[in-house]
Amino acid sequence: MENFTVYNPTKVLFGTGIIKSLGTETKSYGSKALLVYGKGSVKKYGYYDQVVDQLKQSGIEIVEYEGIKPNPILEDVEAASALGRKEAVDVVVAVGGGSVIDSAKIIALGIANNENTWDYMTQKKKPEITLPLIAILTLAATGTEMNAAAVVQNHATGEKIGYAHPLNFPKASFLDPSFTITVPANYTAFGIVDLIAHALELYFGKGDASLTDRITFSIIQDAMDWGPKLLSDLSNVEMRANIMLDAMAALNGITAYGKQSGDWGVHMLGHEMSLLFDTPHGASLSIVYPAWLKVHKEIIPDRIIKLGTALFGVDNVDATISGLEDFFKQIGSPIRLSEINIDATMANDMLKQYKNNEINGVNLPLAAHYQKLIELML
Amino acid sequence: MENFTVYNPTKVLFGTGIIKSLGTETKSYGSKALLVYGKGSVKKYGYYDQVVDQLKQSGIEIVEYEGIKPNPILEDVEAASALGRKEAVDVVVAVGGGSVIDSAKIIALGIANNENTWDYMTQKKKPEITLPLIAILTLAATGTEMNAAAVVQNHATGEKIGYAHPLNFPKASFLDPSFTITVPANYTAFGIVDLIAHALELYFGKGDASLTDRITFSIIQDAMDWGPKLLSDLSNVEMRANIMLDAMAALNGITAYGKQSGDWGVHMLGHEMSLLFDTPHGASLSIVYPAWLKVHKEIIPDRIIKLGTALFGVDNVDATISGLEDFFKQIGSPIRLSEINIDATMANDMLKQYKNNEINGVNLPLAAHYQKLIELML
Repeated sequence: MENFTVYNPTKVLFGTGIIKSLGTETKSYGSKALLVYGKGSVKKYGYYDQVVDQLKQSGIEIVEYEGIKPNPILEDVEAASALGRKEAVDVVVAVGGGSVIDSAKIIALGIANNENTWDYMTQKKKPEITLPLIAILTLAATGTEMNAAAVVQNHATGEKIGYAHPLNFPKASFLDPSFTITVPANYTAFGIVDLIAHALELYFGKGDASLTDRITFSIIQDAMDWGPKLLSDLSNVEMRANIMLDAMAALNGITAYGKQSGDWGVHMLGHEMSLLFDTPHGASLSIVYPAWLKVHKEIIPDRIIKLGTALFGVDNVDATISGLEDFFKQIGSPIRLSEINIDATMANDMLKQYKNNEINGVNLPLAAHYQKLIELML
Repeated sequence: MENFTVYNPTKVLFGTGIIKSLGTETKSYGSKALLVYGKGSVKKYGYYDQVVDQLKQSGIEIVEYEGIKPNPILEDVEAASALGRKEAVDVVVAVGGGSVIDSAKIIALGIANNENTWDYMTQKKKPEITLPLIAILTLAATGTEMNAAAVVQNHATGEKIGYAHPLNFPKASFLDPSFTITVPANYTAFGIVDLIAHALELYFGKGDASLTDRITFSIIQDAMDWGPKLLSDLSNVEMRANIMLDAMAALNGITAYGKQSGDWGVHMLGHEMSLLFDTPHGASLSIVYPAWLKVHKEIIPDRIIKLGTALFGVDNVDATISGLEDFFKQIGSPIRLSEINIDATMANDMLKQYKNNEINGVNLPLAAHYQKLIELML
């Protein structure tokens, strides 16, 4: 076991109807909120109205920034920050999935610090303060609702990078599973892939604690049990609740007990794919993970087999990888680039981009293997 | 799944040598500390010296309160509070096991509020503030290092009660497994019983989430794997680390996801036993739990069998209870009152005490069953 630190001050309010506490909770952080959301679904399905009602009932003045994109971009973060500063808001309220909440974390930093937010994301500057953030989650996937990470892409520099800082923890997150029942089958599946990838990346990171392995397997098994059931009963709130809990637990720190770090190579390559081809995040991960395991099968066979034994009752690396591929196929997430119409030439662009980031100093743990990795993804 | 809230702001610093960060961490909360500890072992084994060295290196002035008892009593809490107020300390630093850290939580409340602390514990008054608490753990057992609960006994009123409040969370807890290698076999075993009891009491509480059941089984399985190994190799720091992690996880909130509450009947009856006979806390629990399960075997058979299947691969209630009894026996913790020389007459005092508390309004979920329960414990 490695030495480690646990710290997660986010208050999570979980359950159907929990939105009724939003006004009171937000009011304790201020009386003027910047409300950040995406491009339509929160309005279409009435979540926006519920949020606005709750805030207004508590007398909170609202300034709105609409239009955060599914793969969130720096331009929106900067524009929303500027708006928040101009309007002197006290608190940021984000309604949406990972893209909206990740953006809101950086928007809050930008408002409080009046700086170019990319300087924080690239670690050129270290923030001392931020604005309080209240998150209302509408997609079970990234775990952003209960962690300190945010991923944003910058088209100007050709980077999609993650940034973690304790100031990024939301003050409170509202997880109402009924807010996720309108997520279509494909994005529901991508969310399940994402949460499994998080659990796996911690599992393959440095350090081991037997309890943490058990917890990790618990989360993946739970998602593998509920996932297919939910996909054939998308409006089932109880099933949504279980997957929502799995996603929260997969990246809220409990899979990192006894760990120094995760191995984020799969996510990083997935980010390259999203940056170049706008691939949905979860879809990129179900393509990268099997290839990543194949590249690592001779390097960490015991670790892969331990996973396979726990999840599928198998005793070898190949059966473990097949088990994972079969599950991704079963829930309808792609496992090869060809399924999303990316050919070898396009994949090479991903490779160039990946190398370019390496040159730019981004930590790429898989650099030695990426050529092979991309071949295995085709 | 029930609606639930997750909130746990304690920062845990875990690992061998982690004490080196104590001064810096404490300094961020103040420059004068009340150092609270027990009756000798922290001095005997040098933990006290390490703590004092670290605090002094950071220029922190120390006021000491020595002598917290293994079943902590209100008199010590009140006296330490009075000392802390008189000396106007900024922060409380506690070095010890559950008794010391639990006491320190209430001492911190007492210092900040200048009130009779029992009024808080009995919920007559609601605190608004407390003093920051830094905990250094020397016994893996209660989970107090990362939760909001504290148990103190009051001989004047004949009560040993638990009190949970968000203000009770330590600001930071230092979990160095090497600080636990001097714990003798019996208290090591009692700690393992205590952590398993915590996991079980959450498991048998109201609400169910499949992930949470899996996490609960993970913690118990991990403790059942490491426990016997550790007991034959008490100075093994890596084994100590694993049990320390299990104890932290068993009551830091992750076994309460999707739950409205735990069922604390076993702990409450155990507290009666400790109050009357000074029984070590863990020893009381290994006696009460088998009886509790026997009383509940026809009320919640499915839940008990699910546990037995996960832990012992069995498919009936009796085999589940035997499995648990066998484990407690294996690690040397008593499973009957006769083993600790308590006969039927003495047990009846426990019953009287228990009824008395019921009359006093303490919530006793097992009240309907306690006569039968005590018979089964003899």
